[in-house]
Amino acid sequence: MDVGTPLTLRMKWTLKLKDVSYENIEEDRFNMSAQLFQYNPVHKRTPVLVHDGKPICESTIIVEYIDQIWSHNPLLPTDFYERALARFWVKYADDMVPAIGLLAQSSNGEEQEKAKEKIWEHLRVVEDQCFNDEKKFFGGDTINIVDIAFGSLVQFIGVLEDALEVKVLGDEKFPHLHSWYNDFKDVPVIKENLPDQDKMMVLLKFTLFVMGSSSDSTLSYIGL
Amino acid sequence: MDVGTPLTLRMKWTLKLKDVSYENIEEDRFNMSAQLFQYNPVHKRTPVLVHDGKPICESTIIVEYIDQIWSHNPLLPTDFYERALARFWVKYADDMVPAIGLLAQSSNGEEQEKAKEKIWEHLRVVEDQCFNDEKKFFGGDTINIVDIAFGSLVQFIGVLEDALEVKVLGDEKFPHLHSWYNDFKDVPVIKENLPDQDKMMVLLKFTLFVMGSSSDSTLSYIGL
Repeated sequence: MDVGTPLTLRMKWTLKLKDVSYENIEEDRFNMSAQLFQYNPVHKRTPVLVHDGKPICESTIIVEYIDQIWSHNPLLPTDFYERALARFWVKYADDMVPAIGLLAQSSNGEEQEKAKEKIWEHLRVVEDQCFNDEKKFFGGDTINIVDIAFGSLVQFIGVLEDALEVKVLGDEKFPHLHSWYNDFKDVPVIKENLPDQDKMMVLLKFTLFVMGSSSDSTLSYIGL
Repeated sequence: MDVGTPLTLRMKWTLKLKDVSYENIEEDRFNMSAQLFQYNPVHKRTPVLVHDGKPICESTIIVEYIDQIWSHNPLLPTDFYERALARFWVKYADDMVPAIGLLAQSSNGEEQEKAKEKIWEHLRVVEDQCFNDEKKFFGGDTINIVDIAFGSLVQFIGVLEDALEVKVLGDEKFPHLHSWYNDFKDVPVIKENLPDQDKMMVLLKFTLFVMGSSSDSTLSYIGL
């Protein structure tokens, strides 16, 4: 459902990486269907995976579920300690979402700077702690759940940069992250399933214009 | 480490439920040790579980890790769908933490009301969606990871109620939750490992007094 937002993108990439066939039901983000409310009564938002008639909600939980049901091309390490580490960084990616939301909702230069600072704080930790010469991806030689979690957010930050005409992810500021994202989006499955950044930008601008940047519900319309 | 805060309590209960012996290293929350910074350089806070010399951080990730290493008395369902559901509600519990932080930091009646409203919104969903006559606990006949997640927060809300002299968890407002928590804290392992609510309250009052309720770092001193 609705693969044009950063969190639904995680589900799409995961299904594609597993080569699982599925039916994609797009949701009109301004007029969500009764079916979506029935499947996700708590959050009333995408993504939702419906498998065997039962709904699974929350992007990270969906990715873990898919990884368990279709266990080929594993996205989580089998070693328990490595798995805990992967979950730590996925949570760290998720913890960055509110700051990205703040940036999207910023209505003046000061708010924008504050939001950028918060995002930078997060990215600085990732830049300094997650990369070494031996690992191309968070998952090592191949991408894993951490790459998917950060990849969807970095892709969306790129959309925000274009829409708001700001610079967040400079290659000088975060050289490792920059190089990682270039490798990540070159992975064939990711490359073939990257959303159209220009279309996303137009939709984002439209959403912010229609909803007003400071509206409480703006974030859910953006898909954060 | 430091079992007097809601998130460390989750680790303590889990270790006790599994009957795993451990050494408890208390941290002075006003003067964290260099060892803690080394083990949790990203968040610089408790809880941290050190197993085989390696640190695991973030309460939910620690509980899942313990559950995998010591697999008796399982805290996560084995069925993948049920497991996804349990993770959904654990995340929902975690999503309530910022609102509890707001309540702790509220410096006037208006802020307090706003924070209470936010907590109530969350609890209303749990009250309406999680209970039925067949299940005593979130985990069914025995407690699971969801009971631990909510139990630690409800216990802490009780501390806040005493410290701030507010009423958040009325038995009339949330009868199912109320009855569940009474059953939960009657489970022998939980009962024997409930922190001293009066001591927690005094420490909380002291922390808020020393740090100032609106300080950015207050939340980490409280342990949220």
